[in-house]
Amino acid sequence: MDLKKLFEFIDKNEKNYISLLNEVVAIKSVSAMAANRDETIKMVHWMAEKLKAVKATVELAELGKQTIDVVSIPLPPVLLGELGKDAKKKTLLVYGHLDVQPAAKSDGWNTEPFVLTEKDGKLYGRGATDDKGPVLCWLHAINAFQTLGIEIPVNLKFCFEAMEESGSIGLDELIKKKKDTFFKNVDFVCISDNYWLGTKKPCITYGLRGLSYFSVEIECAAKDLHSGIYGGTVYEAMTDLVALLSSLLDSKGKILIPGILEGVLPKTKEEIESYKNITFDVNEYTKEIGAKKLYQQSKEDVLAARWRYPSLSIHGIEGAFCGQGAKTVIPRKVVGKFSVRTVPQQVPAKVQECVIKYLKEQFASRNSPNTMKVNVLCSGKPWIANFKDKNFMAGRNAMKNGRLLYLMANLNIYGAEPDLTREGGSIPVTLTFQEELRKSVLLLPIGASDDGAHSQNEKINRSNYINGVKVLASYFIEISK
Amino acid sequence: MDLKKLFEFIDKNEKNYISLLNEVVAIKSVSAMAANRDETIKMVHWMAEKLKAVKATVELAELGKQTIDVVSIPLPPVLLGELGKDAKKKTLLVYGHLDVQPAAKSDGWNTEPFVLTEKDGKLYGRGATDDKGPVLCWLHAINAFQTLGIEIPVNLKFCFEAMEESGSIGLDELIKKKKDTFFKNVDFVCISDNYWLGTKKPCITYGLRGLSYFSVEIECAAKDLHSGIYGGTVYEAMTDLVALLSSLLDSKGKILIPGILEGVLPKTKEEIESYKNITFDVNEYTKEIGAKKLYQQSKEDVLAARWRYPSLSIHGIEGAFCGQGAKTVIPRKVVGKFSVRTVPQQVPAKVQECVIKYLKEQFASRNSPNTMKVNVLCSGKPWIANFKDKNFMAGRNAMKNGRLLYLMANLNIYGAEPDLTREGGSIPVTLTFQEELRKSVLLLPIGASDDGAHSQNEKINRSNYINGVKVLASYFIEISK
Repeated sequence: MDLKKLFEFIDKNEKNYISLLNEVVAIKSVSAMAANRDETIKMVHWMAEKLKAVKATVELAELGKQTIDVVSIPLPPVLLGELGKDAKKKTLLVYGHLDVQPAAKSDGWNTEPFVLTEKDGKLYGRGATDDKGPVLCWLHAINAFQTLGIEIPVNLKFCFEAMEESGSIGLDELIKKKKDTFFKNVDFVCISDNYWLGTKKPCITYGLRGLSYFSVEIECAAKDLHSGIYGGTVYEAMTDLVALLSSLLDSKGKILIPGILEGVLPKTKEEIESYKNITFDVNEYTKEIGAKKLYQQSKEDVLAARWRYPSLSIHGIEGAFCGQGAKTVIPRKVVGKFSVRTVPQQVPAKVQECVIKYLKEQFASRNSPNTMKVNVLCSGKPWIANFKDKNFMAGRNAMKNGRLLYLMANLNIYGAEPDLTREGGSIPVTLTFQEELRKSVLLLPIGASDDGAHSQNEKINRSNYINGVKVLASYFIEISK
Repeated sequence: MDLKKLFEFIDKNEKNYISLLNEVVAIKSVSAMAANRDETIKMVHWMAEKLKAVKATVELAELGKQTIDVVSIPLPPVLLGELGKDAKKKTLLVYGHLDVQPAAKSDGWNTEPFVLTEKDGKLYGRGATDDKGPVLCWLHAINAFQTLGIEIPVNLKFCFEAMEESGSIGLDELIKKKKDTFFKNVDFVCISDNYWLGTKKPCITYGLRGLSYFSVEIECAAKDLHSGIYGGTVYEAMTDLVALLSSLLDSKGKILIPGILEGVLPKTKEEIESYKNITFDVNEYTKEIGAKKLYQQSKEDVLAARWRYPSLSIHGIEGAFCGQGAKTVIPRKVVGKFSVRTVPQQVPAKVQECVIKYLKEQFASRNSPNTMKVNVLCSGKPWIANFKDKNFMAGRNAMKNGRLLYLMANLNIYGAEPDLTREGGSIPVTLTFQEELRKSVLLLPIGASDDGAHSQNEKINRSNYINGVKVLASYFIEISK
């Protein structure tokens, strides 16, 4: 009965929830850009005030400073909050992030990225789904219990950071430092920062790939040079860099770095079997991307490539000409950016060693007089969990509970058992919580696969956002059983 | 005696000349950027007013519109001016450009690029030397004659454009269209838009390389993708692009495109001999660049590489991540930019055909499902002139005339015969004037080799700027003899 009341309350408050999402999307908390650091910090303070308003105690844990180029800027603090200290209740730790990826209308957005814009039941805006929308869902769920005078059946702790899109600098250390104080007595951890496998059916996620993000910098001159005046005499940095970047992969996407696949387990029959039951349409996936063809053809191979094999992507080059038109420059220093998605049993330190060694060898073979530097910009371990433990069962039931109301709305797909999936993306803190707190960590996605996190026209479906609040409210009840 | 009076007047007016340069540097006439188009047009109008003030008649020749991405914006008009119609005098056509390369303080400028800043006798600012400073020198020279009441011994015509840094769109057509009207009766052409070979000795330039600027676009998806979610399944555009770019050159800078060197003449003994007399210090050149080593070691080889052999430079990538930090994006569409500097006897159309054919073959060999497009963004022919004709002799004498005053200032280097040089850069209009008007075109550089055109911290030396006015004034007299 509580659940029914909660769900009805949530439906009645849609407008209010959307108006709050509008407010947070407008805060340009792009953690990658030094110029947006004030906005990023402002976002943390905004959320701290909201937690205080639901009577949580909050602490802003400072992490010191960060140096971007030669400029030192403060890191955004981590928002730690606590609501309820009842020794008879279990304690749930909720993690989320308040920062977002860069976005500009000129990148190809149809609407202003920092203005929440609704169209056909979709709420467009940077951070709508990654991860401001889901973070707000926690707040709305708490608010629903409190307003209705229903006791929240768990103690809650919150850990909201604002550097997730930029390597979560300092967060691991903070968790380690506070594992016997703030993080003590946590029984379960829940993170809502990933996506359904498709667009119609919810899922629960029990595995993630890790991330090792590299920069390779080549410097050839003390200043940018005019290609007419100097071209033909200078060992150009871009020539070296494109050669190095092109040595990373073959034309089929195979990683060419020796030793990097060490630890990657062969696919088991059981694994292949489990993929067969999952609702996933390769054609729909290909169409949604807008690609003509994928590396793989079958559902099983596509899922395996995304979940349990490493991949390498080249993201771009800093320091080269990247504008429109024709600039005849020889850039003095260029920095290539690429990253490797790692899988369980791969060791990030070993992967990084392989990459650095390989690039050094490739560069040495060119006999270039230029200087090369390889840096690891971020590093996160892969993660895998036991999807049959109490935390996962609570999440799975919470999804099913949706039936109560979703059936009424003819959305009976919510009533089914959610798919059990892994994911290709990285949420490094997942593993940190698991390793440091030794508690089960549940990934409970609210957004759909076509939300376009990190992309132009990021959105969250209105229905996912509102039903997400219901799932979290239901999860509070399930986990307390 | 006139020359002495003129030189004294010019020295007295230094402050005024610098203040005018300050004014034009502040106008952000970056032709490559659509957002700066208003400023670029404003710069043309500014100059038109100044020509009117010295009693020239002016015409703003409109060139229509240009489409950047999907946006259509007006092209800046070409400023055509005329001063003097005396049938007894020769007519000199002066060309210069009013637009500049992009510049931002964050690129590594020590001062604001659009604020002229003097330091140690150097005037820093975008366009100071390329080409706003030299264009103003013409104006100052005319002004000196007029204020002193000395008759200018030539008729003058002016052709000042504002799209030189962006392929001079529409200029060739305009010159062809008006060759029997505005450009009729021109006897000589002079362009001051290049640089001394070194930092101390003036030179006269009789050859230029041409330019063919290419973009190669690869598209893999309908939107940018998250590398965690999609990495490993998608044929990424960046993987294709870096492979294509790295197939253009070997590690020694040798161009790998078959057929592209067709027409490049072997070095003659006479040519090598002529290089021996030229004042050029390979060590100073290397040091100024800040390079550790060049492809060539000897003076003769370095000069030949810059002047009479083609080169290929990779400038950058549009559409990929080019900011600071770590963005885990798979860009949906990336556009590589590179250009080939061509030399006399190479045919640009043939060069372009070779490049396009080669890229198509390379791309086909990858079996990528992505789409590739190659475009020629700008094209300019190489140029070579007879340095013993009347126009060149006048320029050489104008340089030597400097002795009169420069000796007094202990700058006796100006009194010597200027070096006869070629240049690696491209000023395509040079060839258009030569071919369409069939008159001698003189390149008379005012700036020094270390001015950093197209680079951070572009500057013109105060002494080059002021002495430049004297050289031009002297050239008016020499060419009329």
